[in-house]
Amino acid sequence: MNDALFVGQKAIELSKLVLKMTTSAGSGHPSSALSLAHIVTSLMYICMRWDPDNPWNKSNDRIILSEGHAVPIIYAAAADLNVKVGTKQNNRKLTTKDLDKYRTISSELDGHPNPSSDFPLFDCATGSLGQGLSCACGLASGCKHLGIENYFYTIIGDGEAREGQIWEACDFLVDYKLFNVIPVFNCNGMAQSDPISPQQSIEKLHSKLNAYGFSVETIDGHNCEEVLSALQRAKENRGPSAIVAKTVKGWGVTGLSKENHHGKPLKESQLTDAYKDLDSLLPHPSSPVSVKVGPRVPKGFTPLDYQSQSLPDPDFQLLLKDDPTVLATIEKGILSTRRAYGLALRELGRVDQRVVALDADVKNSTFSEYFAKTFPDRFYECRIAEQNMVSVAAGLAATGLTPFISSFAKFITRAYDQFELAMIAQLPLKMCGSHSGLNVGADGPSQMGLSDLAYMRAFSTVKNKASKPLLTIFNPSCAVCAYKCVELMNQIEGACYLRSIRTDLPILYSPQEEFKPGGAKFLRIGRDLIIISSGFMVHECIKAADKLEHEGIEVTLIDCYSFPVDKQVIRDALQTGSSEIVTVEDNLGNSLGAEIASIVASDTEISAKVTQLHAQQIPPSGSTKEVLRFAGLELMDRWYRKG
Amino acid sequence: MNDALFVGQKAIELSKLVLKMTTSAGSGHPSSALSLAHIVTSLMYICMRWDPDNPWNKSNDRIILSEGHAVPIIYAAAADLNVKVGTKQNNRKLTTKDLDKYRTISSELDGHPNPSSDFPLFDCATGSLGQGLSCACGLASGCKHLGIENYFYTIIGDGEAREGQIWEACDFLVDYKLFNVIPVFNCNGMAQSDPISPQQSIEKLHSKLNAYGFSVETIDGHNCEEVLSALQRAKENRGPSAIVAKTVKGWGVTGLSKENHHGKPLKESQLTDAYKDLDSLLPHPSSPVSVKVGPRVPKGFTPLDYQSQSLPDPDFQLLLKDDPTVLATIEKGILSTRRAYGLALRELGRVDQRVVALDADVKNSTFSEYFAKTFPDRFYECRIAEQNMVSVAAGLAATGLTPFISSFAKFITRAYDQFELAMIAQLPLKMCGSHSGLNVGADGPSQMGLSDLAYMRAFSTVKNKASKPLLTIFNPSCAVCAYKCVELMNQIEGACYLRSIRTDLPILYSPQEEFKPGGAKFLRIGRDLIIISSGFMVHECIKAADKLEHEGIEVTLIDCYSFPVDKQVIRDALQTGSSEIVTVEDNLGNSLGAEIASIVASDTEISAKVTQLHAQQIPPSGSTKEVLRFAGLELMDRWYRKG
Repeated sequence: MNDALFVGQKAIELSKLVLKMTTSAGSGHPSSALSLAHIVTSLMYICMRWDPDNPWNKSNDRIILSEGHAVPIIYAAAADLNVKVGTKQNNRKLTTKDLDKYRTISSELDGHPNPSSDFPLFDCATGSLGQGLSCACGLASGCKHLGIENYFYTIIGDGEAREGQIWEACDFLVDYKLFNVIPVFNCNGMAQSDPISPQQSIEKLHSKLNAYGFSVETIDGHNCEEVLSALQRAKENRGPSAIVAKTVKGWGVTGLSKENHHGKPLKESQLTDAYKDLDSLLPHPSSPVSVKVGPRVPKGFTPLDYQSQSLPDPDFQLLLKDDPTVLATIEKGILSTRRAYGLALRELGRVDQRVVALDADVKNSTFSEYFAKTFPDRFYECRIAEQNMVSVAAGLAATGLTPFISSFAKFITRAYDQFELAMIAQLPLKMCGSHSGLNVGADGPSQMGLSDLAYMRAFSTVKNKASKPLLTIFNPSCAVCAYKCVELMNQIEGACYLRSIRTDLPILYSPQEEFKPGGAKFLRIGRDLIIISSGFMVHECIKAADKLEHEGIEVTLIDCYSFPVDKQVIRDALQTGSSEIVTVEDNLGNSLGAEIASIVASDTEISAKVTQLHAQQIPPSGSTKEVLRFAGLELMDRWYRKG
Repeated sequence: MNDALFVGQKAIELSKLVLKMTTSAGSGHPSSALSLAHIVTSLMYICMRWDPDNPWNKSNDRIILSEGHAVPIIYAAAADLNVKVGTKQNNRKLTTKDLDKYRTISSELDGHPNPSSDFPLFDCATGSLGQGLSCACGLASGCKHLGIENYFYTIIGDGEAREGQIWEACDFLVDYKLFNVIPVFNCNGMAQSDPISPQQSIEKLHSKLNAYGFSVETIDGHNCEEVLSALQRAKENRGPSAIVAKTVKGWGVTGLSKENHHGKPLKESQLTDAYKDLDSLLPHPSSPVSVKVGPRVPKGFTPLDYQSQSLPDPDFQLLLKDDPTVLATIEKGILSTRRAYGLALRELGRVDQRVVALDADVKNSTFSEYFAKTFPDRFYECRIAEQNMVSVAAGLAATGLTPFISSFAKFITRAYDQFELAMIAQLPLKMCGSHSGLNVGADGPSQMGLSDLAYMRAFSTVKNKASKPLLTIFNPSCAVCAYKCVELMNQIEGACYLRSIRTDLPILYSPQEEFKPGGAKFLRIGRDLIIISSGFMVHECIKAADKLEHEGIEVTLIDCYSFPVDKQVIRDALQTGSSEIVTVEDNLGNSLGAEIASIVASDTEISAKVTQLHAQQIPPSGSTKEVLRFAGLELMDRWYRKG
């Protein structure tokens, strides 16, 4: 049987499975899935080199379903091909019987692609649209780094092509010559609530892709010969290639294709007619198709030789020896935490080959440029496109590398959706949000990270599969602490977020000081008042504590540099004699203060009052001092009255 | 003097002011500003119809500086033209003396465009890149709605053109035929840390814009004739027009243009040489230029006649009379809050002409389609591009309209940066995040809004200029509450965020029930345990309370439907006799629980223990019941032990 005829028959077989599983689940998107029947069949049975018995093999070609809701067609193929599900250690072969459990809690077959559900064919989570091509670029970059030559077929909806991130990914693909990433646009002309805009028509997509530098083939996505030969040519092309496939939403089934039918399965009673519709389209109506053609298994590869993750204690004079201007600063005992981030990252690069770094055109502000200059082959300049950067990092992480991402904390907020998909997949992203807090001052609020801690803290309240915090947060107050927190970020198996600060700040800790996730440092002990702070405001609190002590008020000052905060920190604090806690932070509320209040309120044995000082308003531009005053954080006035 | 000669001379005069003000501030981006000298001068002195004495006039043509860091050139022109700063009621004319205060706290001249600083020439905040063109589209849409015919010149950096949002905006501009929005790309070839990628070259931008449907002119951005004539032609073109301008970063000043010089002012000692450099480029070296040519004042317009904002109490049977399938549901006393959102929005549309709505291809899920069908001219289908949607809404809000934005809460996370810029500008966005919480179930975590409350709560902890919460949050548990909260959203002058729920839920309140910002409802009173919940989990808590009461445990149950929660709610709760509070929510932590814990911990007179129940893990797909169990929210087991 030739490949095209096989695909034609198999596509119908899989389409029936799609109808059955979605009807059985009572939810799902059969119409979107059916529009991909021939493309997915061509890929998974003919085109891709991959091993259903070992979906963990990094050398496998991959299918990335950016329009994640169309996933039933992939599940159907995976079940037919008996792909392994579960973990590397504990797994089994998927069968078509498993399709009946689609979308139930115990099933590996989630509503949208989700590797956390032990479905290892997927590397990254998709389902919030526009992210798959970026993930594919990350996977391809990671595999390239590991010396693997494979292909990444990424399926994108035409409606979905409205997401700007798709075009950020196209730029990245071209910049990094990732010609083994092949986007396939599924143009069924229908989005969820309407037909697509003319701006996402087949012709427009074709023109746009051309303008971005792609060779484009427009094909009939249900013509098996066209699909197979276009995929083959895209593979052979030595430049960026894309396929624009005209398809039918609900292909082959009258009840699903007459009008826009999005996200609704057929009723049980409609199935017989639907099967008949499909059977009438069989290219070879006689015998049922058995799996004669199957994917070819790729070669293995030699993994990287990973070295130690530990770093020696920082000697900033030595680390900065090539930079006389900064040396003068460090000799005065001050250094910014953002510079410490860059230095630690560079040192990690030396001891751990898995470490790669990404930045979005601000590497000379976040200081990831230290890494970029030393390890140009492990650095990804993502340009001014944060969404793509975070999804690329997710792809890199899925290949086993450890991606450190940096940009201004403010700008990373626009990639929170992408960050969340990585959290759903439990991928170990290490993010650094620089220029955190009001102290940024003169550049104004559009450059200040003021909400990041509130947001990130949510992810630190839940656990990952290893029963550790899904996200560990670091908010260091000085260069030594920042340096060591970066080392911790690499040692922690899960995801981490570190905030760095623009300003040069006094170094508070000796190079030998030890830090740990959830730890805190008691900077001084006094019996009248407990001040808890982190990041920039620790330094303001030191000044405040000095003044208060001058007035005879003894202060306990705690630097809570990591979330979630260990409850014991608060218990220890209350041993000092005071039950007055003031939390101090130069960002919006629901951050450090909420963390401490939550601990205090959760335990009847802890009796304390928590006053949360944080920004009361978003300030305009000004000096750090002016901005703190404007935001209501000129501390002395308020604390004196407490005394 | 002809226009081109005037621009040539004036540009140099303004460039000197740029150098002076940034040197005086010790920060800012003179090199980016200088690359725009001729374009901004051409626009503000020749091309634009606008009134420096009345920058509040909605009929003015606008300049939108998407690359906000280049703002000193606009400040220089504004000072030279004595534009009014301050409020409508209390203002003064800006002078060149004011430039010395650039970036100080009392100045109107922020580090990046910020209308909150009483600089009304700007309508929206920019500075986090990629957002200006979307804002311009919103402004243009708003003005069109108001019957105004004016132009919106949007300046975008070439490096910035990497942001996908720019291209989302291009699609929107074409879809909505906003040909009076004219993007001008400032191609100086330099981003912050590197030369731009070849993907953002002049040629590529030209091709991309063509592919998006624009007529494009590539010009020398420092050739005054070319700039003026290209702007004129773009204005006259009856289709989408864009200008791609080749410019020089640090134009005219050796010390700023020799190499990439980003975000660094000259030293005082370098100014004399820089002025000489500029003077040597004077097109007419003899006499200084005085303001002979100035902007022409546009005509006024008749504002909309605004009607009442109040709605009658909801009668869902009546409101749903055209939809028999839902009528059956409502007759059983159940209805989803998302449907209530749509119905209330439609009714608001009837009573308040300022109300407009936006959605991102999920209007049949968020039910903004009720509004869309009734008021198609006031509805913006933004397609699958959430970032553009939120910035368009910011632009609409800046014209005095009241934009209601809806999408899945999950998908709005990718527009948080855009949302924040609107918060900085204190624009009254009304956002609805639907499909909030774990209860989404079968579609899986990529569709669940789990972090939105944590993030949004941060903005509810700060105040706006009216000393009200910068953001008021609503998390209604039933259709009546949701309907009335939507009405409150319209009545509140500031920004609001409402979470809606996918599931049909029992209606808890009578149509006459009254609700208020920060309010809460005591659903039952008991002396043994206080349960505080909101949204979906209120219904689970009712079941829990029933069971507990069966066991002899009397429960106080509070529906905290709005943040920030009034402290008195907690005081009242504790009057019931118990000091055990359990907060219950089906999302990640740092949300409702943090709100309540913060209140309890802040006051020594409140003595209570707060146990926060929220998701302990991010679940896979499953039924609502399965998902809640997986996430550790199967309540009964845990509470029984408490009793």
